[in-house]
Amino acid sequence: MFRPPPLLLLLLTRCPAPRRLLSASRQGQGQGRAVGSVLKTPKGTRDHPPAQAALRERLLGSVVACFKRHGAAAIDTPVLELRETLMGKYGDNAKLIYELQDQGGELLALRYDLTVPFARYLAMNKITNIKRYHIAKVYRRDNPATTRGRYREFYQCDFDIAGQFDPMLPDAECLKIVHEILSDLQLGDFLIKVNDRRILNGVFAVCGIPESKFITTCSTIDKLDKVPWEEVKNEMVGEKGLSPEAADRIGEYVQLHGSLDLIEQLLQDPKLSQNKLAKEGLGDMKLLFEYLTLFGITGKISFDLSLARGLDYYTGVIFEAVLLQQENDHVEDLVGVGSVAGGGRYDGLVGMFDPKGRKVPCVGVSIGIERIFSILEQRVKAEMLYKKDPTMLKQLQYCENMGIPLAAIIGEQELSDGVVKLRDVATREEVDIPREGLADEIRRRLEP
Amino acid sequence: MFRPPPLLLLLLTRCPAPRRLLSASRQGQGQGRAVGSVLKTPKGTRDHPPAQAALRERLLGSVVACFKRHGAAAIDTPVLELRETLMGKYGDNAKLIYELQDQGGELLALRYDLTVPFARYLAMNKITNIKRYHIAKVYRRDNPATTRGRYREFYQCDFDIAGQFDPMLPDAECLKIVHEILSDLQLGDFLIKVNDRRILNGVFAVCGIPESKFITTCSTIDKLDKVPWEEVKNEMVGEKGLSPEAADRIGEYVQLHGSLDLIEQLLQDPKLSQNKLAKEGLGDMKLLFEYLTLFGITGKISFDLSLARGLDYYTGVIFEAVLLQQENDHVEDLVGVGSVAGGGRYDGLVGMFDPKGRKVPCVGVSIGIERIFSILEQRVKAEMLYKKDPTMLKQLQYCENMGIPLAAIIGEQELSDGVVKLRDVATREEVDIPREGLADEIRRRLEP
Repeated sequence: MFRPPPLLLLLLTRCPAPRRLLSASRQGQGQGRAVGSVLKTPKGTRDHPPAQAALRERLLGSVVACFKRHGAAAIDTPVLELRETLMGKYGDNAKLIYELQDQGGELLALRYDLTVPFARYLAMNKITNIKRYHIAKVYRRDNPATTRGRYREFYQCDFDIAGQFDPMLPDAECLKIVHEILSDLQLGDFLIKVNDRRILNGVFAVCGIPESKFITTCSTIDKLDKVPWEEVKNEMVGEKGLSPEAADRIGEYVQLHGSLDLIEQLLQDPKLSQNKLAKEGLGDMKLLFEYLTLFGITGKISFDLSLARGLDYYTGVIFEAVLLQQENDHVEDLVGVGSVAGGGRYDGLVGMFDPKGRKVPCVGVSIGIERIFSILEQRVKAEMLYKKDPTMLKQLQYCENMGIPLAAIIGEQELSDGVVKLRDVATREEVDIPREGLADEIRRRLEP
Repeated sequence: MFRPPPLLLLLLTRCPAPRRLLSASRQGQGQGRAVGSVLKTPKGTRDHPPAQAALRERLLGSVVACFKRHGAAAIDTPVLELRETLMGKYGDNAKLIYELQDQGGELLALRYDLTVPFARYLAMNKITNIKRYHIAKVYRRDNPATTRGRYREFYQCDFDIAGQFDPMLPDAECLKIVHEILSDLQLGDFLIKVNDRRILNGVFAVCGIPESKFITTCSTIDKLDKVPWEEVKNEMVGEKGLSPEAADRIGEYVQLHGSLDLIEQLLQDPKLSQNKLAKEGLGDMKLLFEYLTLFGITGKISFDLSLARGLDYYTGVIFEAVLLQQENDHVEDLVGVGSVAGGGRYDGLVGMFDPKGRKVPCVGVSIGIERIFSILEQRVKAEMLYKKDPTMLKQLQYCENMGIPLAAIIGEQELSDGVVKLRDVATREEVDIPREGLADEIRRRLEP
C-alpha cells in the first residue's frame, strides 16, 4: 500500500545561491524511471539521493563511533579480488559472484563479502593480531525482484577481532557491540540469539546423524525461525534423508532456548555431556554468559539451539540479532525485517590462504545496515518538492494532494531565529519549533 | 631510494584487550608480497592498512567539510553502470573501462569516473538544479606499472553544480573551493591555472586550424606543462598535420599567461576580438576574475592559454591546480606530483542522456585525492612494529637498524598524563610532549 510521507520540507532559500533540491526518499525510486533503454541503474542497484545519503551517513557514523570505542581501526581493501581468492569459500553461493570479463589479464571478480578479503589480507600480510572494522559495498547476483528489500549492491559493516586471546573475551565483545549499536539506534526491542556450531554438531552426533550431513542439516534447522517444527522435520526426513526418529531427537534439542540455566541443564544431559565437541561448546557458552552478565546485557540475549547460520566457515560461537517489534504504525509493513546483525567465530578461514595453513582465530560481527537503513528511512520520511520555483502555495497544495500531514517551513526569518515553522496541513495551524526539538515534535505528532 | 620513516610509534597497550597493531605505511606494500598464486590483490589495486585508512579518513573529512560549507549534499550511485551509459563519453579512453562478464543479464561495466554517472542521475531523475558532492572509487584498466603513482582502483572527490545561474558564479565557486581545500591541507604553494575551451577554439580558428582538428590540437597543447614548445610544435606539424605557420601562430597565443591585464589585451587583439566564441570566453573570463578578486584569491590564479584538459566534454571554463614546490626534503622525490585538482564546465553531457536532448548546464571540480594522499603519507610517515610481544628494547633496536630517528612512546603513564614520550633514537634523550603539540614537535625536529 502506498503511504504518503509524513513530512514535506519547505526550503525557502536565499538567492542567488543555487537552490539545493533534496530528492524524495521514496524507496526504489532510483531504479524505476527508465527513459529510453539506457536511463537506468543496473538491476538490483540504486542511486542514493541526498536525503538518503545523509541518513546513511548519520547511521554509519553511529556504527563507526561504536567500532572505534571498541578500539578497532579501519582498513580498506579493493572491490576487485582475484577470482581464485573468492572460489571455494561460499559453497553454493559462489554462483552469485559477479565475474569480470577476461580482458587479457588476471581473472577478477567483485567481492561477495568483507570477511574473505579480510582473511586474505591477514594471510598476505602475516598479521596474526588485529581489531579492524570495514564498511564498504559488496556484490551479489541475487534475484532482487524475488527477494524483498534485497539489493545486488549493498553496504556491509563488519567488525572483526583476529588473534589468539583468552577464551570468549573477543566473542563477548562482539555481542556487546551488537547490543550497543542496536540500543543507540533506538530501533525498538531486540533479541540476540546465540549458539555454537560445536554444540549443534554435538547434538547431531548424539542424535545419530552422520557427519557428512551436519552442514545440510544446519541449513534446514536455520529455517526454524520462519516455519514450524513440523515443516522442518518433513524437510529433514523427506529431502535430507534423516530417519524420523533422528529428526525427533534433534527436534527435542533445537527447540530449546534459555540462558545459563539451559546451559547447566545441557551440561548434565546424559548424552550431550559425553560428546567432546558439545561439552567444549557448552563450557565456552557458560563462560560467555558469565562475561555477558558482567556486561549487564543478558536480558536481551538468548541461548537458542535453533540458531544455525548459513555460512560454512563458522567453527564456534554464532549469533544473530532480530528486532522483536516495531515502534509505531508507520513501519508496520516492515515486521518481516528479520535479522539486523549476525556473526560468529571462524578459526579456519585465514588458514585457507596461508601457504603453510597457519590458522589465525577470528571472530566478527556484521551489522545489517541496509535493513536498519530501510527501517530508519521509513520512520521519518520527508520529501521535498522537485520544483525549480516552489511557491509556498504550490507546495502546500502538493501536501494536501498527497496526504502529507506536516510541512516544515524554513525561510529567512526561521533561519535567523534558529527555528522551523511546523504547519499542520489539514488545520493550517503553524507553530515555531526550535530546531533541536523538531524531530521529537514530529515524532510526537505522528504517534497513533 | 629507500627512506626510513621518521617515526616509530611504540604502543605499550594495556592487556588483556587485544593489542592493536597498526601496519607500516610504506607505499605499495599491499601489492607485493604474493605467497602462492592467490595471495595478492588484483594488479593496480591495494589494501589500505589502518594507518593509511586513518590518514585517508582525515583527508576526506577535510574535503567533505569544505564541500558541505559550500552547500553541497552527498549522493551515491552504484559502482556498476550499464555499459551503454558509459559508452561514447570517454573517447579513446573507453578501452580502459572494466567490463563484467555477460552472465545472462544486462551488460555491465565499472564506472570510469563520477561525472558521467552524475549526468545519468540528473537526466534519469529530471533534476535540473543541484549542488552535490560524491566521494567514491572509480576503475580504469590503465597500465599501473608504467604510470607512476597511478592505480586501477582509486578515489575521486567530486563537487558539481548543475543548473542555470547567472554567468560565472558557480564557476567562481568551484575555484574558491579548490583554493580553500589546498590552503586547508597546507600542501605548500600552489597555482590554479584557468582557461576556457571557447577561447582555445577561438585561437585555433583565427590561426586557421580546421574545426575537425580542434580536439586533437587540444590534446597536444595539453603537454605544454611537461615539454618545451618546440616539441609541442613538432607534434602539431609532424603528427597532427598542421602547417608550421599555423603552429607558430598558435604558439604565440598558448604561451601567454597572466591575469586581468592579459584578458584585456586579448579582448583588444585584432584577430581574436573578431571571433565570436573567443569573445564570449574572454568576456566570461573577465567576469570570473572579477568574482575571484572579490573572493581575494587571484594571487594564486593564472589565466593560462596553454591549459587544455584532456576530456572531450568540456564546453567552457577549464582549470587545473598544481603544487609549485615541496615543503621539506622528505618529499623531494615527489616533485613530479603534478595536478592535484581539476575541472571545468560541461554543458552538454546531461543532454546526451535526455531523450529529448534537454541540456542541464554543469560545472564541477575533482580533487586529486590520491596524489594529495601520497604527499601527506610521505610527510609524516610513522611505522609500528608487527610484533605480538613488542618489548621496548626490541622496538628501539628496530629503529636503530632501520635508521628511524624518532620513537613515540605511549604507555600507561603517558596515557594518564595526556602526553607522548618522544625519544631521539640516536641520543636516547626522552621528552614528554603534550599530545596536541606532538605533530608540531615532530615536524620541528625533522626540519633540515
